[in-house]
Amino acid sequence: MPSSTDGLRPADPDAGTSLGVPVSPGSGLLRPLGLAEVRIVGGFWGERQHVNGAATIAHIEYWLEREGWLGNFDAAVQGRLPGARRGREFSDSEVYKLLEAMAWEIGRTGDEAIQGRYDAIVARVAAAQEVDGYLHTNFGRPGQAPRYSDLEWGHELYCFGHLIQAAVARLRTRGDHLLVQVARRAADHVCRVFGEGGIESVCGHAEVEPALVELARATGERRYLEQARLFVERRGHHVLGDIEFGRAYFQDDVPVREAEVLRGHAVRAMYFASGAVDVAAETGDDELRDAVRGQFAATLARRTYLTGGMGSRHQDEAFGEDFVLPPDRAYSETCAAIGSVMLAWRLLLADADPAWADVIERALFNVVATSPAPDGRSFYYANTLHQRELAGVPEPDVVSARAASSLRAPWFTVSCCPTNVARTFAGLGAYVATVDDAGLQLHQYAPVRIRTRLPDGREVAVDVETDYPRSGTVRVRAAGPERQRWVLTLRVPAWAQGADVVSGGTRHAARPGAFRLEVDLAPGEEVLLELGVGPRFVWPDPRIDAVRGCVAVQRGPEVFCLESADLPDGVDVSQFRVDPAVAPTERDGRVRVRGTIGTQPDADWPYAARPWGVGEHSAPVEVPLVAYHDWANRGPSTMRVWLPTDAPTQA
Amino acid sequence: MPSSTDGLRPADPDAGTSLGVPVSPGSGLLRPLGLAEVRIVGGFWGERQHVNGAATIAHIEYWLEREGWLGNFDAAVQGRLPGARRGREFSDSEVYKLLEAMAWEIGRTGDEAIQGRYDAIVARVAAAQEVDGYLHTNFGRPGQAPRYSDLEWGHELYCFGHLIQAAVARLRTRGDHLLVQVARRAADHVCRVFGEGGIESVCGHAEVEPALVELARATGERRYLEQARLFVERRGHHVLGDIEFGRAYFQDDVPVREAEVLRGHAVRAMYFASGAVDVAAETGDDELRDAVRGQFAATLARRTYLTGGMGSRHQDEAFGEDFVLPPDRAYSETCAAIGSVMLAWRLLLADADPAWADVIERALFNVVATSPAPDGRSFYYANTLHQRELAGVPEPDVVSARAASSLRAPWFTVSCCPTNVARTFAGLGAYVATVDDAGLQLHQYAPVRIRTRLPDGREVAVDVETDYPRSGTVRVRAAGPERQRWVLTLRVPAWAQGADVVSGGTRHAARPGAFRLEVDLAPGEEVLLELGVGPRFVWPDPRIDAVRGCVAVQRGPEVFCLESADLPDGVDVSQFRVDPAVAPTERDGRVRVRGTIGTQPDADWPYAARPWGVGEHSAPVEVPLVAYHDWANRGPSTMRVWLPTDAPTQA
Repeated sequence: MPSSTDGLRPADPDAGTSLGVPVSPGSGLLRPLGLAEVRIVGGFWGERQHVNGAATIAHIEYWLEREGWLGNFDAAVQGRLPGARRGREFSDSEVYKLLEAMAWEIGRTGDEAIQGRYDAIVARVAAAQEVDGYLHTNFGRPGQAPRYSDLEWGHELYCFGHLIQAAVARLRTRGDHLLVQVARRAADHVCRVFGEGGIESVCGHAEVEPALVELARATGERRYLEQARLFVERRGHHVLGDIEFGRAYFQDDVPVREAEVLRGHAVRAMYFASGAVDVAAETGDDELRDAVRGQFAATLARRTYLTGGMGSRHQDEAFGEDFVLPPDRAYSETCAAIGSVMLAWRLLLADADPAWADVIERALFNVVATSPAPDGRSFYYANTLHQRELAGVPEPDVVSARAASSLRAPWFTVSCCPTNVARTFAGLGAYVATVDDAGLQLHQYAPVRIRTRLPDGREVAVDVETDYPRSGTVRVRAAGPERQRWVLTLRVPAWAQGADVVSGGTRHAARPGAFRLEVDLAPGEEVLLELGVGPRFVWPDPRIDAVRGCVAVQRGPEVFCLESADLPDGVDVSQFRVDPAVAPTERDGRVRVRGTIGTQPDADWPYAARPWGVGEHSAPVEVPLVAYHDWANRGPSTMRVWLPTDAPTQA
Repeated sequence: MPSSTDGLRPADPDAGTSLGVPVSPGSGLLRPLGLAEVRIVGGFWGERQHVNGAATIAHIEYWLEREGWLGNFDAAVQGRLPGARRGREFSDSEVYKLLEAMAWEIGRTGDEAIQGRYDAIVARVAAAQEVDGYLHTNFGRPGQAPRYSDLEWGHELYCFGHLIQAAVARLRTRGDHLLVQVARRAADHVCRVFGEGGIESVCGHAEVEPALVELARATGERRYLEQARLFVERRGHHVLGDIEFGRAYFQDDVPVREAEVLRGHAVRAMYFASGAVDVAAETGDDELRDAVRGQFAATLARRTYLTGGMGSRHQDEAFGEDFVLPPDRAYSETCAAIGSVMLAWRLLLADADPAWADVIERALFNVVATSPAPDGRSFYYANTLHQRELAGVPEPDVVSARAASSLRAPWFTVSCCPTNVARTFAGLGAYVATVDDAGLQLHQYAPVRIRTRLPDGREVAVDVETDYPRSGTVRVRAAGPERQRWVLTLRVPAWAQGADVVSGGTRHAARPGAFRLEVDLAPGEEVLLELGVGPRFVWPDPRIDAVRGCVAVQRGPEVFCLESADLPDGVDVSQFRVDPAVAPTERDGRVRVRGTIGTQPDADWPYAARPWGVGEHSAPVEVPLVAYHDWANRGPSTMRVWLPTDAPTQA
């Protein structure tokens, strides 16, 4: 299965498309593996994949029916639009993301019960497609706004993008299907209407760009790639109207090649950047890829939360300026973190730089895993790093405002995050490992079963055993009938507090980055990776004004937080001051920090002519922290990731 | 001119209504003085009143014509609505606020040129009133939404409120007028439609409540008061629909008597609270006034910026939770500060507590005075306390998005602030002093001429001379033909660094609060107040996470800030660390602080496993600060009010 380095890979269903690969670039240093090649068999992510398949997908189906967003397609067929239409203008996309999640889930598990439900939904969607390929329940019919009359906010091409991604997921798992035909007709329509000589504009919300490139890859049809290229190059030239938030909101302020950092609406920025890298990969446009890489690097250096969350503004769901990262109004939308995984994965495939896998790991453990409740039936949309007040528990049967809920909610008026989590979790196995001509690269650590072959035919068959991230011990065991003779590349995360690799009785000290090891393992033999995952303090760049004088705690890839549920009755997280001179410890399975609990006397005016004293402060106490992704699982609680260290002296 | 302690004061044009009193409660410890009794004759506020009358009022007229918001009334008369309508649903209110500003300006100056323009505008407004008194250009005509079909967002009663306030301003200065008749018809319509048995709801944006009470006071018509009371009591009982921001947005979450703090949209909260205090004053409802007083006190203690600014959220222009006061996303809308002046003034009249005058002073000097440029032709809508990036200069002839501009802009899509500043500045003299049975109270210090009489007929005639706040010296000189024999009460601000009162050769040390002095001054004799206004550091309550480890500088009532315009070329405000051990000084007319200028090395990831070092830091330097209300008057600049004190050690 050669990884061609230029042009589109041929659309050969035996050559990768049926292996369940979400992103399949025609160039790049690493070849992605599909769900048929990498199977997560348990652990942190295995449990989440299980809940996703067993609960979340059905939960989404329930809400899409209940809210009428699926019914919009029926209403279109029955001529009941616009009167009967429900939901926001982009509600079609949630149906498509559900279909994408189902396709990966079917590919991952072969679940035939899901297949039947999938077919039924596809039939309803397909029936609403118009003869020229256009398919959207909110535009173009009598009484509705005309097609493409509101590119700034209409989300038509955004919805097509998710339709196409759903079709690619189907093509890459079980092959052709009615949905694939629907998506191709829609894509052909887009090429006709927005191609050379057509509407010289783009969609306010990027998404069709990466989707069209992936469809080109999956079908071998270069015109989809060309259309994506046009969209990528057009944006930034003020092709959209100005809006209250400015054109940076939809990245139409500066051409992609000239921008220096990601900006505006964080999800849009991530999807667009992903599409640009996709175009660059297929056109050999290193300048374009380098531009986006630089923007993402600047964004990580100056506009990203400790959790990997992006977007500090509620108002426009946007990045703030450099170092504007307030924990208590962190927006950090779940979908933006998923977008950062998309973008980092594309750069990892292109560059083989393990730093991109660090980015993915951070966002997955600390934002994407934070969104769903353990039962997979409620979600965070925004992921604050500081909850000051006890929140009301959202009703289990009520739609929540987008980001108002500070406990996980079952569904939102804008409900992009649950469906995005579902499609990401279902396809998660594909982000664990890659191959190149020399061997296997392990990017994420989870119990997985990997079965593939290198381009020269050598078998790669290993089982990875670990209870990462609880433990930093990862065993890579030869699991095929053949000797495993190739180069194993292990990611040593930048956060690792020491790393050793043990192979054939030899222990190697490994530094952060890529650790390469020639292996020659008989069946059952193993390589052992030991990562230091002990708890540690993390200090913020002094330019992040909002967390000056605070530290946070991480353990392995996980960010921890202090929750009021772990404090004595009546004590709030705001009362705790951590002692940064005493390193965090771990005991009885809990990460703990030392500090004092105090009470700040109230004042009529919170600004004084002398430094403030503190009231009674306790003797030093030890308090347990909780992994951030597990917060608010014990009912309403206050919470903070950043813990003040200052122990003000009495004035 | 007795100040009755219950019931409405009779509508006697000789008994105060023609004296130019904006707020005239029927009860309370202090009696307000009108523009005819207190005249600002120069100084800080005199200059601003002059610019307001000479430039701002005409500037507003120009933009109201240009944007068609005045033309909407003509279009209504000519049957060209809804097609020809321009501006947001509340644009009528800007016309009314202009009329209010003009009325006070005419009352203040007798400017007949303004009177002609005023009459012309009133004629256009009056022509659009419908036969039943309803008057709004955005509702109720064929093709428009029905009247009161969108109480949450429609702003109909809000607009009526400003119409009524404009009429009161006319009644209280020159007396009856076409506008007064229009406003009374509108108020009568409101009473019919929303009275007992009518629509059991309120307007999403409070404003009609204080307006109706004031109209009742100005006309003696108790039904307007009763309608206001109904509106005040209804709100909080979920009479409005739920919205994305929650019912707290328009204070419909909790009844006014049960709330513990102001919350939601800050301007709405302030206007509503003012209306509640007005109702309480006329109905003797101490419980209601006490409830609002407690909410305001809690808001000042926990939800107010150092500048007196209120509202920390851009998204919903709302208060954040307690102690959520980020300087870099401070919304601090100009109108919210004006609302806080309205509320504090009502409580000051009721309680005679000089702390309310401190609140007024803080908001006036640091928010209201910050909004307009020196030429009175551009304005801040939001008043950030931290500008991180050099902003583009808004075009002089372009409408700005509401709060996007970080330099003052000539007009906004939502342009409530310029008109609010204009009406406030025009009537500012009324907030300087009051009388009671015993004598005169001076609440604000400015060069003023006060001429009135006490209830027992004693003359109060003083001239106040001062260049406050530059100097803390205030001279109160007997200026009438009679001996001035009454009790002079001087406010000693809570911030004062020492205060002395010199009278008859005796020097009295005065503590913050109300300093009462029996005076007996022959014409020309004076009392001298000397307030310590030297620059000083201010430390924030440790619960304000966003400014931990920072100090600010105040001088007298003024907040100061560091602007990049005062730093060497290429140095940004983010590079300065202040030394809090060296008190700020004043030299050559500038306030100065000592500190170092450094460079923070860039990093790939802004969170590290050890405390961050700093790069090269300069030897201690002295940098000048600028009064916050004067920032951005020298072109694009970065700025911060809160200066980090920490000098991180090299890691």
